[in-house]
Parts: sequence; structure tokens; C-alpha cells
Amino acid sequence: MKKIKAALIQHSHKGSREANLAHVAEQIALATKAGADLVVLQELFASAYFCQHEDPALFDLAESLDPQHADTLARKMSELARQFEVVLVASLFEKRAPGLYHNTAMVFERDGQVAGRYRKMHIPDDPGFYEKFYFTEGDLGFQPIPTSVGRLGVLVCWDQWFPEAARLMALAGADVLIYPTAIGWEPEEEPEEKKRQLDAWQTVQRGHAIANGLPLLSCNRHGFEPSPDGHTNGTQFWGNSFAVGPQGEWLGQAASDADQILVVSLDGQRSEQVRRIWPFLRDRRIDAYGDLLKRYRDD
Amino acid sequence: MKKIKAALIQHSHKGSREANLAHVAEQIALATKAGADLVVLQELFASAYFCQHEDPALFDLAESLDPQHADTLARKMSELARQFEVVLVASLFEKRAPGLYHNTAMVFERDGQVAGRYRKMHIPDDPGFYEKFYFTEGDLGFQPIPTSVGRLGVLVCWDQWFPEAARLMALAGADVLIYPTAIGWEPEEEPEEKKRQLDAWQTVQRGHAIANGLPLLSCNRHGFEPSPDGHTNGTQFWGNSFAVGPQGEWLGQAASDADQILVVSLDGQRSEQVRRIWPFLRDRRIDAYGDLLKRYRDD
Repeated sequence: MKKIKAALIQHSHKGSREANLAHVAEQIALATKAGADLVVLQELFASAYFCQHEDPALFDLAESLDPQHADTLARKMSELARQFEVVLVASLFEKRAPGLYHNTAMVFERDGQVAGRYRKMHIPDDPGFYEKFYFTEGDLGFQPIPTSVGRLGVLVCWDQWFPEAARLMALAGADVLIYPTAIGWEPEEEPEEKKRQLDAWQTVQRGHAIANGLPLLSCNRHGFEPSPDGHTNGTQFWGNSFAVGPQGEWLGQAASDADQILVVSLDGQRSEQVRRIWPFLRDRRIDAYGDLLKRYRDD
Repeated sequence: MKKIKAALIQHSHKGSREANLAHVAEQIALATKAGADLVVLQELFASAYFCQHEDPALFDLAESLDPQHADTLARKMSELARQFEVVLVASLFEKRAPGLYHNTAMVFERDGQVAGRYRKMHIPDDPGFYEKFYFTEGDLGFQPIPTSVGRLGVLVCWDQWFPEAARLMALAGADVLIYPTAIGWEPEEEPEEKKRQLDAWQTVQRGHAIANGLPLLSCNRHGFEPSPDGHTNGTQFWGNSFAVGPQGEWLGQAASDADQILVVSLDGQRSEQVRRIWPFLRDRRIDAYGDLLKRYRDD
């Protein structure tokens, strides 16, 4: 990876697919005007975070990810990538077959071609985040996506808590780790707990950057989204999209409660330099890691 | 693990084995007076950080770790643990056989018995830290050591950069991650780089705490130690020993340049609570982690 400019587009849900699309198109235009070579959208940017409750009707939101299909988000994203000549990472709700859906990030080249896709591998499930109902676990593994700006280690949201995912991307030659995400607070949570959660979310990801000597981009939504059926207090998505370098050093951070385009410069040479002083890949004890493939070491 | 008090004893090299031993004995007395159930010493506390250059004569510093042997550090540590009725983690230079040495952390029960040992698995080697010359890679794997205060996930220094080590300890039922360490700056380094390095060191370890829902203790030395043969500028060990809880939240942090006993309270119940809201162990994709056992995924 050479020197590039990356833009993270953080926004609130604008009320409809059309409104979100219009907003994102406008923001991509601004980001590329600011020099962005790579644009990252937040997780499931085209809708509300619909996993706050379980409703079979919501599978209607899922689409084919073939950009040849008219009126699909994939088609629209392809067009935006081509129009603005930018590499675009877009998180979409994939309909793979009737009854088979994924939380999928697609990467489009600057000419609009599909560079690759990543199907979210780690699927969360906790009150207000019922993703195991909607998304089948990814089956494409952890494979960086080669693009004109570098090999993109695209992961999604819950993946960000798993060092294994980041490591596998690094071992496969990723130049940067990228996380579209949708994470927030239970609104009634204590302020101290909110602070711990936000800090933990950033810290664990910065840890992946450090452990792997890679820059990292994390693009989150912001804004309050009510619970559609009122069984929870809704979710206050906490924004704070951020970027760090290969020592975990801060490159930029967005606000907690505002639409924002966070533009940062990434220099692929930094990873080479940092890995020379901290050669972790040299010293991994692969002979002693076998039990990482176990659920638990109680046998 | 129940509620315990842990004490980290951070100090500078006092000039000799005897002086370090005397200092540590005094500090253990103070720590237990302050209520410590568990005391952690810094890496190779009994000597200077001798790996600043490669000198075969320095293997004389290594000892049998059998506490039955009179005048050994192991014997002395066993006596201190029994005298102060405290669980003690002590990092020692182990002579296993002629020509076979390890960087080993021993854990002593409050009755002075050996609870277990851990041989440093990841061995660094970079200018001023020539550990591959002195220490054979550990061959005991990543096994928590059961004690009266809980199952101690004892690792050593360079291990702290490897998420695999922390994960394997968590999967084997560790209640807490513990790192005796000796890390510092090249004195002529730029202030900004020094800041990045210290921050990265703490952040990556806090990331392990978060990813595994475990508290973590990291005990470092402080003070400048010159290069014995003048081929480097020596090392300014950066202190900043610290403790965090299972969300990576700060429990305490020592100064960068002072002898200090850092006493913190750990509550084993916190891990249970945190893992209920962040059930990462539930969602690991062990079916897709096979390549973690590869050096690099280029085949």
C-alpha cells in the first residue's frame, strides 16, 4: 500500500433507504473532493439498524448483491464508485437464497467493478442486537480484498472484538484493517459503564492494529434509534468512528453525535517500519497455538 | 477467583542481587501489610536487565529453580511467600541444564510451596534486547497456574504483544493475566515515538483484557541501565506498571520513574458479569481459525 487518503462516512439513519442513499452519495462526493482514494461506509448504512427486534418481514430489506440487478444497492454503490473514481467499502444485507442471508461488506473498485466481498464471520446476539436471527455466519473466511489502494482487510462490527480475525487478515497480507460497524449504548446505562464500553471498543481495535502492525479504520453510525416493538429502550449509537496507525496511534476520531466525514492519511510504509522494530510475526509460536482451534481447553 | 488484593512491585535495579533481594523483601512486607494476597515482581527482578549485550559469562546468573537448593533465588522466594503468607509471582533466570536456560516465572503458594512455573514462550531479539541468545523458548505451553487466589495466567514481557498467548490462557480457565516485564526506551528516541511505544504497550495489553474478559496485571522495571559494552545508548526502562479490569478499565498505574508498590483490588465476579454482556467465547469461529497455525498465509 502506498500513501492514500481514506474517508469514513459516519451518519445517523435518515429515515428511509432513499434518504440514506442520497446522503451517502452527497458525502462520497465531498469525501472525494477532499482527496479520498478510499471511502468506508458504516454497517448496514442504507437502513435503520433493524436487528433491534426479530421480525421475519424484515428479510424484505435483503437484496441480491449482483450489481447487474437494477435498483439494487449493489448497483448504486458500483455506480457511485465509478462516478467518483473511488474504492468503496459498503456494508449490505445480502440475500443469497430464500431463507439464507448474510451481513456482507462489498468492495468496489474505482471503475465500479466488484473487487470482492466479505461475509461477517462472527455474529452477535444480545438484547437489541438479534443478529443470529437475521444473518447466517459467513463462509468466505478471512481474506483481504485486493484493490488499487491496497489489500483491504475488511471485517464487520462484532468481528472487531476477536483478535483471531485481525490476525488472520494480517497473515494473509492485509495492508489495513477496516470495520464498518453499528454499536451503541443502552440509553439507560450508567455514564461510567458507557465510558467503559466506548473505551473498550476503541482499545481492543487499537490492540489489533498494534499486534499486527497495521493501520485500522472503524466506521460507526450515530444517533438514537427506538426499539420498533418497545421491548427495549432502543439504542444510542455512539459514533466515534476512528482511525489509528500501526502502533495504535490516533489518526482521527469523529464526534459521538454528528454526521461527519473523517478523512485520514495512511502510509503503507509505516507498517514496514513498525514491523521492523516490533517483529511479532517473526516470533509467533505456531507450534504451541493448536488449542486456539478449541472452544475451550477443558478436556 | 474471589475478591483479592494484588500488589505490583516496580523498582529500579539496585546494583546487586543482594540489594535487589533486600529491596524486594522489604516491599513484599509493605505490600502484605497493605493487604495484598498476591504479589507480582518485575521481570528478572534480581539483576540488571542483562540482555543488553551478549556475553556467555552472564549465564552464571542463571540458577536451579528447585527451592530445595540452598542460597537460590527460588529458595529465597519460597521463604518470602511463606513468611508473608502471600502468593508470589517471581521472574527468574532458570538454569535447566548446562547450555539450556529459560526466562521463567515461578509462582509460590502462601505456604512457600511451588504452585507452578511458566517458561517464557515468545522470545524477543532486537538491539539491546538480545534474549534469543540467553533464553530457550519455553516448552511448557500456556497453562494457568492454580493457586489459593485463583488461576494465574502468568506470561512474561514479549508475550504481551501476542493475542494468542492471552487467548490460550483464557481458554484454559485463567482468572487473571499477569505479565512481569522489562521494557523501556532507547534514550535518544524522539519524545513522540516514546509516547507511541508506551501507549501501544499498555493498549495492546488492555486489548487482551477486553478480548478475554479478564483483569490484567503488568509489572515493569524503571530506571536507566547503561549498555555494559557501550554499543547502544542503554535503556530507560519506562515503569508505568499497571492494572486493568475485564473491560480494560484502569485500576491503577505506577509512575514512569519511581519505585512503587501498586496495590489494586480484583473481583473475579466482574469477569463473569462482563462475559455475559460480551460473550466473545461463545462466538469464536474455531472452524475458520486453522490458518492461525501458519507462519504466513502465502501458500
